[in-house]
Amino acid sequence: MSARFERVALIGLGLIAGSMAHAMRAGGLAGRITGHARSAETRATAAEIGLVDEVFETAAEAVAGADLVVLAVPVGAMADVAAEIAPHLAPGAIVTDVGSVKQAVIDAVGPHLPEGVHFIPGHPLAGTEHSGPRAGFASLFRNRWWLLTPLEGTDADALSRLEALIRAMGANVEVMEAPHHDLVLAVTSHAPHLIAYTMVGVADHLRRVTESEVIRYSAAGFRDFTRIAASDPTMWRDVFLHNREATLDILGRFAEELFVLQRAIRMGDGQHLHDYFTRTRNIRRGIIEAGQDTAAPDFGRGAGPG
Amino acid sequence: MSARFERVALIGLGLIAGSMAHAMRAGGLAGRITGHARSAETRATAAEIGLVDEVFETAAEAVAGADLVVLAVPVGAMADVAAEIAPHLAPGAIVTDVGSVKQAVIDAVGPHLPEGVHFIPGHPLAGTEHSGPRAGFASLFRNRWWLLTPLEGTDADALSRLEALIRAMGANVEVMEAPHHDLVLAVTSHAPHLIAYTMVGVADHLRRVTESEVIRYSAAGFRDFTRIAASDPTMWRDVFLHNREATLDILGRFAEELFVLQRAIRMGDGQHLHDYFTRTRNIRRGIIEAGQDTAAPDFGRGAGPG
Repeated sequence: MSARFERVALIGLGLIAGSMAHAMRAGGLAGRITGHARSAETRATAAEIGLVDEVFETAAEAVAGADLVVLAVPVGAMADVAAEIAPHLAPGAIVTDVGSVKQAVIDAVGPHLPEGVHFIPGHPLAGTEHSGPRAGFASLFRNRWWLLTPLEGTDADALSRLEALIRAMGANVEVMEAPHHDLVLAVTSHAPHLIAYTMVGVADHLRRVTESEVIRYSAAGFRDFTRIAASDPTMWRDVFLHNREATLDILGRFAEELFVLQRAIRMGDGQHLHDYFTRTRNIRRGIIEAGQDTAAPDFGRGAGPG
Repeated sequence: MSARFERVALIGLGLIAGSMAHAMRAGGLAGRITGHARSAETRATAAEIGLVDEVFETAAEAVAGADLVVLAVPVGAMADVAAEIAPHLAPGAIVTDVGSVKQAVIDAVGPHLPEGVHFIPGHPLAGTEHSGPRAGFASLFRNRWWLLTPLEGTDADALSRLEALIRAMGANVEVMEAPHHDLVLAVTSHAPHLIAYTMVGVADHLRRVTESEVIRYSAAGFRDFTRIAASDPTMWRDVFLHNREATLDILGRFAEELFVLQRAIRMGDGQHLHDYFTRTRNIRRGIIEAGQDTAAPDFGRGAGPG
């Protein structure tokens, strides 16, 4: 199955779409790449740095004639974009998205798309805390997972073509159902992000500890949270609003667990704390063995032991 | 003021003491370094890799004749160590520690030390998730803060000598009172660590999401938490038990704040979420400008743009 598409349209020109553009060019995976972003400033930047071959003022123009259309806008914007592009999609085109929530995207996009267009929702588990048209880079997807949540009756050839492209960009593909995706991501991504945002917000509110001390002494652990809490606000607002139930479920469990540990601290139950901290250490080991993080101390920020 | 000590005794041979040994050797800051660890295995490893010049079976032997003694054991072990070494300390020796909590260490160590010995509590805000005698490296303290919480009436010359050593190892020194230290660290370190441990524990408990999925898809955010939650269990148990009030205070504020955000998600209040996430983004910028973290995306784990 060829991984190459003749004309790819990227709707939204942020970190993910930009990285796809770089990766597709690096791999010769796209004949021509068009793009559209809602913001005039983003379009101007994308044109200036030559992120894609042509930038269009409207999504409708950008998708004309494309055999692959990638919706890379915040989840809350998917429905409007789908409604706008629907009449302009080429027959047989593959439409995918990169949203962090899948069931909500299916509900928002699916009804708009015409017969004969292959809609295959997707989600690359890759990103950084940076955003915008300058944030992308070709290796972003390397060794990362790209989850696809195709609907029943999806065309097998279309699915294979999309999978081939994703693998050619360096990612691994896994297919699952949308509700399962949304639950897994609530654990591995959505709840951790909300928790990081919360902790950084608490530090921001504290008046007894001046802001400069929080910043100055952040290397003691806090700074890791600030990286996650620097992620794009619009994207994350939409994630929480559109994966509400699963996120609230995990956050509820988190609060329960936190209270149990707070109680152990209050009661001086050192054994409980030690047992808990020993268990969590093992999970880290599993992640490194699975190739999903570096074993270098402190993420390799500093020089490590020889 | 000379940064050099003739004989340095390291009590405890983990990440911090090991890094001090490397840094002091690299900078020619110690004539001779002795060491002791409670565990025979740690002592054997330290001797095998030549971490210090001589490893002793008891702390009492290790401190004999030392002009600088560094207590680098978990906070809960400080009192016993202080009681053991007290009769063997040389007159005029400086005793410092590297515990993450300061008031509890002052209460535990202070009463044991004889007249004529200078006790200057300290805390380097540096570390990695690795521990043990092989985990240290010379550059660990470079551009990190090392907080000192001297007691009233501390000898100015002794304080200057210790400060000179710390600066010579690459760190910045700040002097503050112990209770303020414990509050600041509750925000920048202790609460974030407990929260990370909690989130990883929640993921570990979930049976609907198999362990392999949590690990496999961890790059979506969760893996950052697992690094912190891989820190040494004994050290962290002691931190929470000995900085109980400040940590519980911050965790209480955190829980309140989390509930407000959960409510915003439940009510669909996107504006509240967006405003909150925009504020937290600015703190990250401050940390990078203060030189306390890398601006490279994703901590520089992957190749970045340009």
